[in-house]
Amino acid sequence: MNKIRYELLHVDKYTGARRGRIHTKRGIIETPVFMPVGTNATVKGLTGRMIEEVGSEIILANAFHLFLRPGLEVLNHFNGIHNFMNWKKPLLTDSGGFQVFSLKGRKITEEGVTFKSPLDGSTIMISPEKSMEIQQTIGSDIAMAFDECVDTKITDYNYFKESVDRTFRWAKRSYEAHNRDDQALFGIVQGGLYSDLRQRSLEQIISIPFDGYALGGLAVGEPYQESEKVLKEFANKLPQDKPRYIMGIGSPTMMLLSVENGMDMFDCVLPTRMGRHGTALTWKGKLNLKNSKMTFDDKPIEEGCTCYACQNHSRGYIKHLYKRDELLAKTLISIHNLHFNISFVKAMRKAIEEDRFREFKEEFFKTSTYPLKN
Amino acid sequence: MNKIRYELLHVDKYTGARRGRIHTKRGIIETPVFMPVGTNATVKGLTGRMIEEVGSEIILANAFHLFLRPGLEVLNHFNGIHNFMNWKKPLLTDSGGFQVFSLKGRKITEEGVTFKSPLDGSTIMISPEKSMEIQQTIGSDIAMAFDECVDTKITDYNYFKESVDRTFRWAKRSYEAHNRDDQALFGIVQGGLYSDLRQRSLEQIISIPFDGYALGGLAVGEPYQESEKVLKEFANKLPQDKPRYIMGIGSPTMMLLSVENGMDMFDCVLPTRMGRHGTALTWKGKLNLKNSKMTFDDKPIEEGCTCYACQNHSRGYIKHLYKRDELLAKTLISIHNLHFNISFVKAMRKAIEEDRFREFKEEFFKTSTYPLKN
Ligand SMILES: [Zn+2]
Ligand SMILES: [Zn+2]
Repeated sequence: MNKIRYELLHVDKYTGARRGRIHTKRGIIETPVFMPVGTNATVKGLTGRMIEEVGSEIILANAFHLFLRPGLEVLNHFNGIHNFMNWKKPLLTDSGGFQVFSLKGRKITEEGVTFKSPLDGSTIMISPEKSMEIQQTIGSDIAMAFDECVDTKITDYNYFKESVDRTFRWAKRSYEAHNRDDQALFGIVQGGLYSDLRQRSLEQIISIPFDGYALGGLAVGEPYQESEKVLKEFANKLPQDKPRYIMGIGSPTMMLLSVENGMDMFDCVLPTRMGRHGTALTWKGKLNLKNSKMTFDDKPIEEGCTCYACQNHSRGYIKHLYKRDELLAKTLISIHNLHFNISFVKAMRKAIEEDRFREFKEEFFKTSTYPLKN
Repeated sequence: MNKIRYELLHVDKYTGARRGRIHTKRGIIETPVFMPVGTNATVKGLTGRMIEEVGSEIILANAFHLFLRPGLEVLNHFNGIHNFMNWKKPLLTDSGGFQVFSLKGRKITEEGVTFKSPLDGSTIMISPEKSMEIQQTIGSDIAMAFDECVDTKITDYNYFKESVDRTFRWAKRSYEAHNRDDQALFGIVQGGLYSDLRQRSLEQIISIPFDGYALGGLAVGEPYQESEKVLKEFANKLPQDKPRYIMGIGSPTMMLLSVENGMDMFDCVLPTRMGRHGTALTWKGKLNLKNSKMTFDDKPIEEGCTCYACQNHSRGYIKHLYKRDELLAKTLISIHNLHFNISFVKAMRKAIEEDRFREFKEEFFKTSTYPLKN
């Protein structure tokens, strides 16, 4: 058995913030941790060396995308994603659910979800068992149970209740179907913004001895206050001795709120997506590198930043590259943004160790223009 | 005076191939040398570190593009291109002529060329004096005289003759206007495929004490046999004690023919352009990485290649990235292709040193699928 082990190092004296460590066969992940997203077995615009150099300890890949392309036959041939993309550190896969549920015309039954392939229109079913097969073929270090992520347009309480129970049945089936000894499996708590349904889902999911637990169905468009409520009420009800993952968040604000309430892991496409669109994340706020004010600016994106972009290039140069539609602009800003997010979780770790997480959070909002919202 | 100095190390016993060295204030350039093209002050898809790692000793940038964007005010503010793009090794600029002459509606007068700015439609004149101003502001280590590159559709002998004489007058004006002590200036021999006009242009241009000489107006669509004829007749009439540059070539075939006849320097967008389009250059021939045969191929682009792409990734992975339109595909193939071209010139250097350039050339055509044409 080579699954992961979570070690709780310290809890901040004045908040629920946890400083921990996840031991995996591919190395140690210090927590809180931010996971860059590598949807198609590549973190957009970065080489493997760059991903390492920004400080990534673990990355995320999307089971749904990889299932479609390159497909299981190829992943199997290459003996899994680590070898396929030449990534040696830990990697987590989502279950494919989130993407499938976003597809138009997908049909949910007890068995699973049926949808038309975006590639060739053929009908595909993803069930808990299929999701486990996909993730086991991908060979991620951490797999996710197959859950239902309810359409954000649905507000019907009864639908959410049914969905919570279905997610529980699917979680049990995921757990049963999963049989890869060297891969951890996390369960996902759903329930939307309904307190009683979150509680119900939490009790159901933690009744299964998963290797870690996630809060799903947040950061899907709701105001940050709503996610904060869920975090405040439920984060700390997740088992103390397992990693706690909140899916799809990566803004400084949401990372702060999540950590404050005791979450350990996050992933988000935000840093690379914003990078490709010319916006940098800095300790003072967002910086629009397309702005004409950048033209003569010979400062780096962020003074004192040790990333490759800031160590080598000015805002003026990056603005020029961006305006000329040069690939290098996207790469440089993405490097900086991932480096920022990872530096941000590192700073949170230090604040927790020193029992000053609350001051850290207050100071951050005081000295930056990030709104206290997602 | 910090201009360049050319050192002739050895001439192959059986061909005109030269092994040399160009001393510059930014380092030594071993010749023959291939110069990657960095049109907009970036070699497309590569970071500065990657450009260095593929072995580049000098890169080329385009005066015309840089004049339009970021423009002279910005280049001046940043104290030249080296500082602007953070490139510490030598850099050569073309004169802007080639691009201007390709624009529709440009007008040639004795003074220079008038054209409408592709940015805002305003009328711009580039003259020899303006070209020198642009290149001096860019601060390249080697600047090129402003010449007329005759439209490939023109076949009129008399037009070529006029153009050769105009190029001579412009060369003299370029030489007069140029006053940057730390920047070398090369003259360009024109004359199309007319032997007598090439001879006339050559005599004119070498009568001016430039720091190096180029053959221009080749590799503009003519069959390789035509360029070869010009190379055979004129390359070795260029001064022995100065670098000899043939502009716009970079295919293995044309590099071989050029070196065989005594040329030292080349530039071409081919390796990066092909890289962005999914084709790799290898010692055996071109390799289409989009081909479905690559899907399960776990070999690197080229076995034994020491480039970052080949040291880290398989053809199957790169094919997957390309199909998913991931930036990393373009970067990886471009890295490999530049590394290939630079390894190719390094192999030519060694063959010259050992007086076996002819065998090297024969062997290359025997073991590869490259046609003996451009
Ligand atoms: Zn930075
Ligand atoms: Zn290679």
